[in-house]
This record gives sequence, C-alpha cells and structure tokens, in this order.
Amino acid sequence: MSYNLLKGKRGIIFGALDEHSIAWQTALKVHEEGGNFVLSNAPIAMRMGQIKELATLTNSEIIAADATSLEDLENLVDKATEILGGKLDFVLHSIGMSVNVRKGNHYTNQNYNFTHKGWDVSAGSFHKVMQVLYKKDAMNEWGSIVALTYMASQRVFPDYNDMADNKAYLESIARSFGYFFGKDKKVRVNTISQSPTPTTAGQGVKGFDGFIAYAEKMSPLGNATAIDCANYTIAMFSDLTKRVTLQNLYNDGGFSNMGVSNEVMDTFMGE
Amino acid sequence: MSYNLLKGKRGIIFGALDEHSIAWQTALKVHEEGGNFVLSNAPIAMRMGQIKELATLTNSEIIAADATSLEDLENLVDKATEILGGKLDFVLHSIGMSVNVRKGNHYTNQNYNFTHKGWDVSAGSFHKVMQVLYKKDAMNEWGSIVALTYMASQRVFPDYNDMADNKAYLESIARSFGYFFGKDKKVRVNTISQSPTPTTAGQGVKGFDGFIAYAEKMSPLGNATAIDCANYTIAMFSDLTKRVTLQNLYNDGGFSNMGVSNEVMDTFMGE
Amino acid sequence: MSYNLLKGKRGIIFGALDEHSIAWQTALKVHEEGGNFVLSNAPIAMRMGQIKELATLTNSEIIAADATSLEDLENLVDKATEILGGKLDFVLHSIGMSVNVRKGNHYTNQNYNFTHKGWDVSAGSFHKVMQVLYKKDAMNEWGSIVALTYMASQRVFPDYNDMADNKAYLESIARSFGYFFGKDKKVRVNTISQSPTPTTAGQGVKGFDGFIAYAEKMSPLGNATAIDCANYTIAMFSDLTKRVTLQNLYNDGGFSNMGVSNEVMDTFMGE
Amino acid sequence: MSYNLLKGKRGIIFGALDEHSIAWQTALKVHEEGGNFVLSNAPIAMRMGQIKELATLTNSEIIAADATSLEDLENLVDKATEILGGKLDFVLHSIGMSVNVRKGNHYTNQNYNFTHKGWDVSAGSFHKVMQVLYKKDAMNEWGSIVALTYMASQRVFPDYNDMADNKAYLESIARSFGYFFGKDKKVRVNTISQSPTPTTAGQGVKGFDGFIAYAEKMSPLGNATAIDCANYTIAMFSDLTKRVTLQNLYNDGGFSNMGVSNEVMDTFMGE
Repeated sequence: MSYNLLKGKRGIIFGALDEHSIAWQTALKVHEEGGNFVLSNAPIAMRMGQIKELATLTNSEIIAADATSLEDLENLVDKATEILGGKLDFVLHSIGMSVNVRKGNHYTNQNYNFTHKGWDVSAGSFHKVMQVLYKKDAMNEWGSIVALTYMASQRVFPDYNDMADNKAYLESIARSFGYFFGKDKKVRVNTISQSPTPTTAGQGVKGFDGFIAYAEKMSPLGNATAIDCANYTIAMFSDLTKRVTLQNLYNDGGFSNMGVSNEVMDTFMGE
Repeated sequence: MSYNLLKGKRGIIFGALDEHSIAWQTALKVHEEGGNFVLSNAPIAMRMGQIKELATLTNSEIIAADATSLEDLENLVDKATEILGGKLDFVLHSIGMSVNVRKGNHYTNQNYNFTHKGWDVSAGSFHKVMQVLYKKDAMNEWGSIVALTYMASQRVFPDYNDMADNKAYLESIARSFGYFFGKDKKVRVNTISQSPTPTTAGQGVKGFDGFIAYAEKMSPLGNATAIDCANYTIAMFSDLTKRVTLQNLYNDGGFSNMGVSNEVMDTFMGE
Repeated sequence: MSYNLLKGKRGIIFGALDEHSIAWQTALKVHEEGGNFVLSNAPIAMRMGQIKELATLTNSEIIAADATSLEDLENLVDKATEILGGKLDFVLHSIGMSVNVRKGNHYTNQNYNFTHKGWDVSAGSFHKVMQVLYKKDAMNEWGSIVALTYMASQRVFPDYNDMADNKAYLESIARSFGYFFGKDKKVRVNTISQSPTPTTAGQGVKGFDGFIAYAEKMSPLGNATAIDCANYTIAMFSDLTKRVTLQNLYNDGGFSNMGVSNEVMDTFMGE
Repeated sequence: MSYNLLKGKRGIIFGALDEHSIAWQTALKVHEEGGNFVLSNAPIAMRMGQIKELATLTNSEIIAADATSLEDLENLVDKATEILGGKLDFVLHSIGMSVNVRKGNHYTNQNYNFTHKGWDVSAGSFHKVMQVLYKKDAMNEWGSIVALTYMASQRVFPDYNDMADNKAYLESIARSFGYFFGKDKKVRVNTISQSPTPTTAGQGVKGFDGFIAYAEKMSPLGNATAIDCANYTIAMFSDLTKRVTLQNLYNDGGFSNMGVSNEVMDTFMGE
C-alpha cells in the first residue's frame, strides 16, 4: 500500500547491503511512496552485497562511494543531482563499522588505529556527507537528513564496544550541523535510534541473539524491525515532520524509557 | 492534499476550542486523511468555542465531557465507539489549565486548591481517559494515544507556573500507562512537546508574545505552528510509527536541543 | 570520622522513621559533620517510629508536622529557626507515600482519591515546604535544599505505580522553585535519585527484593545504600557544591546510564 | 579552610596551564585537602605555562606527557605511582583543543585532518589514560576519575565548533569505560559539565565574553567559577560520592535546566 508521501522527492540512500539492511527496506519503502533516489555504498560492501537487485527493484542507479572520501562524496552528490534532475529532498546515512569489534578487541584493550578508522567511517562520514551537501547547496528547502544510530550512545551496552562512542559523536554531529543546515538552508537533521536489528552488520556483535531476546522482553511493543524503521524514516522524510530537527528519535518499542519490565524480572527470577 | 493515512481509523479528539487550537487543526487534518472521530470538550469550553462549526466541517459529532469525571468519560467512550461503529484507533488529549495562572498567583505564592484543580484537569485527566479506555478495552491493537505537552516540564520557563509541574506529571503518565497499554493491548502512548503556540489558551501566559519571538530566534527552523503539530500528530496516528511508544517528541524547530543561537546572542548583545 | 563539613550549619530533616530510613542515616551524618537540625515527621509516622532515639543520638529536637498542612509547616519553620538560633542552611525532604500502592490498586485501576492523597503527600508537600521557607525568608544565602526521588520518575518500573508520577512532579518542582529560590535567595535546590533502598517504606513495593537483586547486578558499582545517600547529601549540603542547582543527581552505582550489564544478561540467559 | 577530605589520597592532575585553569585551581584545592599528586601536561603547554610555580605551591612533581601517546602515558603512570608511593585514588582529565577553532575554520568547513587531531587530543586521550590505568591496575578500589566537559556535547552552542562533538565522545567514553572500571576495579568515572569559564583556553572561542554574560543571566545562581569546579571535583574525589558513577554532572548555576530566565527575556526585549 502506498500513500504517495514522497512523490516527486529525490534523495540518496547510503548503506544498503542486503535485504536484512535497514537501508534496503527503506529504499523499498521510499520507492513505494514515490521517491526517487541514488543508492550508494562503499566499493567493498558493494562487491559483497546484492545491491544491484535492489537497484532493479527500485528503478534506481548505484554510485559507489567511500563515505570517508571527500572526493568520492563530491562525485556522488554531483552525479546524483544530475541523474535525479534537481536538488535533493532526503538523505539516509546508514553507515557504521568498528574494526575493534571485527578484530575481537575488548573495549579496554583498543587498538587506536582501529578506533580511528571506526570513528572516521561511522561518525566522521556523516559530517563529510553533510559538509559536501551544504557547500554544494545540494538540498532543497525543507529537505530531511536522517542518520541511524543506537542507544549505546547514551547508555552502556558492554558488547557494543567503541561503536557506542562513535554513535555519540554521530548524534552530536546531527545537532551541531543541524543548526547550520536549519538556519541557512531550512533542512532538518535527525537521528533514529533503532531497536537492535538482526542485520548482517549487527550479527558481528557478541551475544547478539540473547540481547535481542532481552530487548524484546523489555520493550512493551517488542523490538522495532527493519521495516518499522523504514516506515518511521518515511515519516521523517515526508512533509508531515517539517519542524522536527536536532532530535534523536527512538524507534524501539519503548525500550529507551523502560527501567525494567515485568517480563524481564520474571525471567531474571527464574519464573 | 490528502495521503489517506488514516483511512478507516476512528478516534476521539479532546480540546478543540477555536481555529487557533492545535486540536482544531488536528481535527481538520485527521478528517482530510480519512479518519473519523468524535469531538469532546468540557461543557464550559464548548459554550465559549465554535466547536459546532468544526463538527460540521469534519462531519463529526460532539460529546461534552468533563475530563476529570469518570462518569462523563465512560459515557463518552461508550457513545463514541457506538457512533463510530467500533473500537478506537487514535486519541488526542489536548487539555490543560492552571487556575493559579488565571488568577495571577505567582509560582512561589500558590493557592493549593487551585494547584490541585489545575493538576486534576491538566494531568489527572490523561490518566482517567486512559483508565476508562483500558478498562473498557476500547482501543484497537496498534492504536495510538497522543497528549500535547510543553518543554517547561523538563526545563524552567518561569511564567509557565504550575503548568510546568502538571506537564511533567502528564509525561510520566504517558510512560507509566504506556507500558501497560503496550504490553496488554499493543497500543502506543506518546506526548508531543510543541513550540509555544499562539492558541487562545496560550495567550493567558504573561509575556507570551515576547517569548514567542525569543523561541523563533532560538529555533533553527523557527517555531512549529499548530498546523505543523497537526501534521506530526497525523504521523503519530498513522501506521508509519507503530513501534514508537513512551516517547516525548519535540516538535519545536530544534529549540529543545539548542544551548544558544547566534540570532539570540545578536539580539542579547544589542546588535 | 568527621570532616566538619557542616560546622555551624542549621537545618530541618524530614522523614526519619527508623534506622533503615535514608533520612535517619543522613541525620546521623549531618550531626557527625557538625550540623544542627530539627527532626520532623508526620504525627502518625512518629508514633510508629523510633525518632526519639535519633533525637537523643543527634542532640536534636523533634517537631511533628503534617507536610501537607501549611499551618503545621509554618509552625515548624518558626520553631526550628528559633530553636536553632537563626536562618536555615539545609533542608532534606524525604517524604513519600502512595495510597494506591498500600491498598493494592494496580496502576491501571486507580482510586483517584488515593491518587490525589499520594500526590499531595509525596510531591505537593515539597512545594509547600519551599513556599513556607521562601515566604518567611527562612533560608540563608547559599543554603541547600535536597529532596529524595527515584528513577521511576523518568523510566518505567511497573510496580512503582503512581509514585512514579509523583516523583516526576517532585523533580519538576525542584526545577521550577529552584529557579526562584536561586535568583531571589541564592539557595540551591536539587533532587537525589537513589538506588532502590530496603527502607521500611520501600518494602511496601511488590517484588522489591527481586528488584534489588536485579539493580545490584545492573549497576557497575552495586546499589547505593542509605549511608551512601547520606554521604552524598552531606556533599550537597556542604560548601563544595555551591553552584549546583536544578539538578536530578543519580546516586545509584551507575544504574541510570546502563542499557544492560553482562551480569544481567548472564542471569537472563540462565548462565 | 581544609576539611582533610583527601588525606592520604594520591592522583594525577592533567591540564594545569596557568592560574585561570580549572586544573590549576583543582590542584590547589586537592593539596589543601591533603591529597598528593603528580602534575602532567603536554610538553608544549608546559613551556607556555607556569606549571613549575604550581608544583612548588603544591609540593608536587611534574611529568610531561603527550596524552595521545601511549608510551608517554605508560611512563607517566609508572613514575607517578613510584613517586607517590602506591596506587592512585584520583585522576583529573582537563584536556581539550580544537585545531579547527584555532585556525578559524567554520563548523561547516572543517579540515578533517584538524578534526582528527582535535578528537584525538580532546576525547581519545581520555580513553588512552584510562586504558593505561586499567591495564596497569594502577587505581585503588573506590578511586575516582573525573573529566571536564561542556554542555555543547548535548545542546548546540554554534561557536563551540567541533569541540561539541569531541565532548560528546568524551562523555560516552566516561560511560563505556566507567562500566568496566566499575565492575572490574570498583573505580568510578564521571564528567563534570562546567559553566563557560574564562580560562586561557576558553578565550579562543569567538564571542566568548558575550556568551559568559548570557550564561550569567540565564543561570539562577550565576556561572560556576574555576574555584567552584575545583570544589565540586574535590567532592567527587572524596569518599562522600562512592556510588556515583557514569554520570555527567552539571556545575553551572542551573543553566542546563533553564528554558529561559526572566533576566535573559528582559535583555532580549530591550528592557
């Protein structure tokens, strides 16, 4: 079912890897809602993923870009506006990776070259994307930029490792850059803080399945799925949320405002 | 323009007084989006307002109810489900009043009978509405309940007086009841924390015009209007936000996450 | 061991019932640190408690007061300043009670007369105490007012019932009144949000022992005890924290900023 | 006046440059309160500062260390524990620097090499300090680690530039590492978020004097001074706050919980 919420809107969607990706589901929804977009991912991620299938499904083009490279991003924005025929209305940043997690380094035993790399990819890239869009004046007024984040930025989830710190930096960028993008270009910038989601990337985190079960029991409405996140992102890209900016929006079945649920306590007590 | 986001959905909208009311604008939008509803307001407010005009415009019926009276609320919910032909999908609570403000009592010089009355009307009524809906099992699964609030619940705005404390209590009810409504009925409960809005009610607050100008300069996207709030509420009533619950959602052009803006500093410095 | 942190300071301590009370432990510490004070509790609580023993231990007088009665509070403040020989430097508000909890009413099945009573005792009393102190100009400059609260004001703990909403209102009063007390009298007002503590009052909450075990496993430093809270309160009464105001301060071993701990996950997974 | 709050405690104080520095004032206070410590600063900062004068005043030794160098930090911790005669009880991290600010680059026009450098110095250094302390098991149980931060981490202050994002990352490190330091070593980790303070470093920020005046009018108790921060840090190093951890503590005269003050509104309205 389509509402035509994004009819005539143009954008860029970063980070679709496979059908488990939130960005993948979002691309499908945006397409359904009438939006046109360019898909982008890192060259290496594109070789692993099935992004060409998504491009076919959504009638969109793919432009590879290393989101830490200004040159790649400038090329992407130039080509995207050219292909789509005008300035952009929406951008989804769904990019994150910790080398320390991949290499199995504990949070208290970081390799700081890895820390730097993960920070640059997961957080710095968001600033770079916005700086390129801002300098090129590539966004339409009342456009909407969304980055995906996770609550580990605000509270401790021990296995999330240095991604927690990266997401805190990312959320700060949303506020800091959101101010200038709002004042100067009337563009809104927000982050969506999503339930733990069984994406291909998420599965790298230790004990992830157990944690998903825990979050499910803690959340009064259960964990938000990738499709739920796609829907919420549609709402944030649409004209229904024009004055919402600098916010970190929890899409998590209520987890973020729970102290404890009866269901978790029952399991905890062995009942 | 309509997206048909609320086609087939039924609800109750509390608090439409006149065209300046957020509830009034929300009712118009919900109607446009295909939703059906009953309008409710306090008997005394109805005499002052032009709610009949709104009922005509939106093809809806009016049921008077004192939202602090369980009897009135039970009657309202019974009749609304009967008139609308089934359980409810959405409820908007836009009710608030401080007798201390009306009588000009300073925050440090409260009349506690007035304090009690304001608390009961502004905050207690939200619990009562939900308790009646919950006990009567009057909400459909994945229904959505929204109450309007203001940021004075979380930070100090001196002239907001005891409404600040009432709104803090209201937001807590949203979380506390939202847990049970979520777990037991799959219903979401959220508050929208809106920019200062020149409603008829808002104009009772001292120095309100100056404050609106201040908020406008502080907010990167300017103050959210009543229509912006109506649009955001539509998004929260729609199926796009099914897993968003227990949240306090700022619709304020970014004000809530500002420390200071350059525009406010310029005025402050006399530039 | 004493640091003489409160030498020469005068105050009122509300809510000491027996040696399990946080207020009791705080009174002992304040006395050790050189502070003089009057103890106050509700007449009914005083009959049950051993407050006379505490008065003897701390060389202090007891003045009964119903903290919802302006008349009682006015009498208390007049007598306390007379007995202590001058204006006050510190006040501890440790008062809370939910009739709905006592009577076993579920949060979704409140008796609103009980709700009103609990709100008045647990939250309204804090405003009344401050309004009396403010009007009588009974606090010295750089004095410190502390109220005890619990994190259920901000996140859901289902069994905490309507005390959650009362504590949200209490924390809002701390901000709202703290502004005027700061500007007009240079007095600071803060709340301390304490770990679940096995006080006599706390034991009325359903499943309390299990919850204490859960909180202990969630908190990296374990639950804060009543003595820990007394120590923190001393710090907040002392001249070391003169510019800290309007804050809600968590004394909870870190619980408030945890998403999940490894220890809770292990128990959850049955390991 | 001394309370002997830190008698027998040992620590490291980073970042004292001159008498305007918060770290300088903290060192004086810690000395007064009976604590012994090693002073550390970057070799380049030491050439500019008068740290030798401070060392004389506080009877302490100086060990130069680039806080982004693991080698330097390992040497520092080894020598400090040797000089002081045992494990450490407290550490103050007061280190921050943005090359983008120094070079006059606007937030929307960052040089990313500068961004990286500022992030490494201002935020990464805090992780490195703790990783070295943790691996060397150099902290005593119930020790206390404090880093200084600023509210721009949570809300927008446009001229604070990329330091806002760095401070958000720093605060996240406090939580993330604080969990492991708490669980494994019983050490608490907190940040103090201080009023704008006219330090030598702070004066690099554009429009700083005007902003200090604004913050003074917004804060019910006025801006916290460097000495106020030193006092609060003493409280956080003392045994009075043993169970306070993972917190971001505002020492700001109430600024952080203000929406607007009457005094700011009066100036804004030209009254």
